[in-house]
Amino acid sequence: MSRGAMSRLAATSITAVLMASTPAGAEEAITLRDMGSFHVGGRLVEISGKPVKEVTFTPGGVPAKVDPNGVYQVEQMYVQYFLPANEKGAYPLLLWHGGGLTGVTYETTPDGREGWLNYFLRKGWSVYNSDAVERGRAGWAQYPDIFKSEPLFLTTANPFERFRIGDGPNSYDPDPAKRKLMPGSQFPNEAYENFVKQGVPRWTTNDDATIAAYTAEIDRIGPCIILFHSQAGTFGFKVAQARPDKVKALIAVEPAGVGDPARIDVLKDIPTLFIYGDYIERDSRWPKIRATGLAFADAMKAAGGSVDVVELPKAGIKGNSHMMMMDKNNRQVAGLIQNWLEGKGLTKKP
Amino acid sequence: MSRGAMSRLAATSITAVLMASTPAGAEEAITLRDMGSFHVGGRLVEISGKPVKEVTFTPGGVPAKVDPNGVYQVEQMYVQYFLPANEKGAYPLLLWHGGGLTGVTYETTPDGREGWLNYFLRKGWSVYNSDAVERGRAGWAQYPDIFKSEPLFLTTANPFERFRIGDGPNSYDPDPAKRKLMPGSQFPNEAYENFVKQGVPRWTTNDDATIAAYTAEIDRIGPCIILFHSQAGTFGFKVAQARPDKVKALIAVEPAGVGDPARIDVLKDIPTLFIYGDYIERDSRWPKIRATGLAFADAMKAAGGSVDVVELPKAGIKGNSHMMMMDKNNRQVAGLIQNWLEGKGLTKKP
Repeated sequence: MSRGAMSRLAATSITAVLMASTPAGAEEAITLRDMGSFHVGGRLVEISGKPVKEVTFTPGGVPAKVDPNGVYQVEQMYVQYFLPANEKGAYPLLLWHGGGLTGVTYETTPDGREGWLNYFLRKGWSVYNSDAVERGRAGWAQYPDIFKSEPLFLTTANPFERFRIGDGPNSYDPDPAKRKLMPGSQFPNEAYENFVKQGVPRWTTNDDATIAAYTAEIDRIGPCIILFHSQAGTFGFKVAQARPDKVKALIAVEPAGVGDPARIDVLKDIPTLFIYGDYIERDSRWPKIRATGLAFADAMKAAGGSVDVVELPKAGIKGNSHMMMMDKNNRQVAGLIQNWLEGKGLTKKP
Repeated sequence: MSRGAMSRLAATSITAVLMASTPAGAEEAITLRDMGSFHVGGRLVEISGKPVKEVTFTPGGVPAKVDPNGVYQVEQMYVQYFLPANEKGAYPLLLWHGGGLTGVTYETTPDGREGWLNYFLRKGWSVYNSDAVERGRAGWAQYPDIFKSEPLFLTTANPFERFRIGDGPNSYDPDPAKRKLMPGSQFPNEAYENFVKQGVPRWTTNDDATIAAYTAEIDRIGPCIILFHSQAGTFGFKVAQARPDKVKALIAVEPAGVGDPARIDVLKDIPTLFIYGDYIERDSRWPKIRATGLAFADAMKAAGGSVDVVELPKAGIKGNSHMMMMDKNNRQVAGLIQNWLEGKGLTKKP
């Protein structure tokens, strides 16, 4: 990157911070009967035969011996909950983020507007927002001893194309004004760097552990609705297949994977909404990813399921990236989900 | 670990989960004018000369090319904020956790009671709870390319002695009933495994990056009070030395490190409270750690500072571990801090 590009980027970051400092709006207060967090799931793993290390944890501090041999707690996940005083949802709403991301996905937008967590909380849902195994406040474990692959790190530029914000390869530039955006993009381009800061390293070998932890989350919370995004497509459908009696609805936001096709029948009593954003035909990977999702939706319908598919552009909602919960029209998309939930009778009867 | 010990541990975890499912109490509602999160700080680093990888992010998904060369966003931190509708604090209260931990430290207790975040929020403070550089929702960067050392992982047993829950080496046992606790310990021993799940990997070479990010946090939030624990002792005092005009009070909860002794004079207008728990004389490391803190406190006083030191047992509050914000009497310790803040005139005038 040139020095000039770096300077422009620094100026952009300052602008983004100033934007984000603006209050989210004159919304009414959020009143909670409780809020808190917990960890759930995971397992114990023993490591042996390694040498003891002496570690000074704080410069100038007193060295402590750290024996790497022993039993480790691994593969748990983190859940933060917000319970509204005036609950209107018939079941708690669980928010599951996508790959290389955490629950921050739903907390805010890169330009500092309210995220879907606040939106659904204000609508009266008890919201459980989480960090899946391997990331965020869930922590992560030694590799290759426990996690079986190396973690992946994404460059600043990588998600710009892959999440259909930029129009094709090399669409990213450090200068927001020089980026090649999808035409009519609703992503808050000027604040893209704040989105990049939300990214966390990602493994490709932890699916089973993640499904186990999500299943433990549901076993603890009880009957619930799951809204899941991208990588969590696989997790949402497979956990619903593992606990069909506990899952009362599924909202699949651009799922990157699906459930077990051999066990599709167990999903037939779970109302399901698929949502896809814009620009899919312009992308090299998304036509196939969406086709996989739509085929799964069709199979669910054929098995007697109640399935709705919304392709946002066909519904007149244009400009959405893969990160539609952060796009400038994120409330409009959330409103579509809220209407669907109400239509399915999943809010409390007055 | 024997199979029997594993089974006992599994049973214990179930008990702990059931305990944690109990509502935190018939507290009155928490009313917020806003809540949300942001990332702040960090820098861009370029990596070059590495081969392109092809990665299938989701099993059965479409492979994507991932080029590890490029510019990375690193060393940012994560901040979640809760702003009460009826604000009573004169300044926002920033909560900074200790080493190998995240903001979860303040959100809950291992046995599911309310943490200090809720306590201070209920008292009318705007609370900013965060994950420092290298952990939790702040993410972490490649090592040794960017972070200069390897991460450390703690065994399940390690913090039990080091945080003065257990009485000396080998005091931990998977069976809570067989652990050698400090006499009169207030730590929720039966739920210790839930505390272990909160742990995250830790580096020993990120102090400068962490101080830079915390400084960026303060530059964004403005005048504030910082409550910091353990590893964050170094960060709290050094950031206050970097921004003495913006820090209106410091609460050092068992600081494991201190500030720059050569610049102690800049702290003289910042009211400061040091708090130490119980069992320090019984521990191999804590007498020296506390002595370092008390010497810094004395130097602050000699420079004209307003410094209070509370050694809890001397104040009649007994049984506290290093994790006093999670001990069974955590509200009592928080109350002591609240009284100190009120006494220093740091609440709004009626």
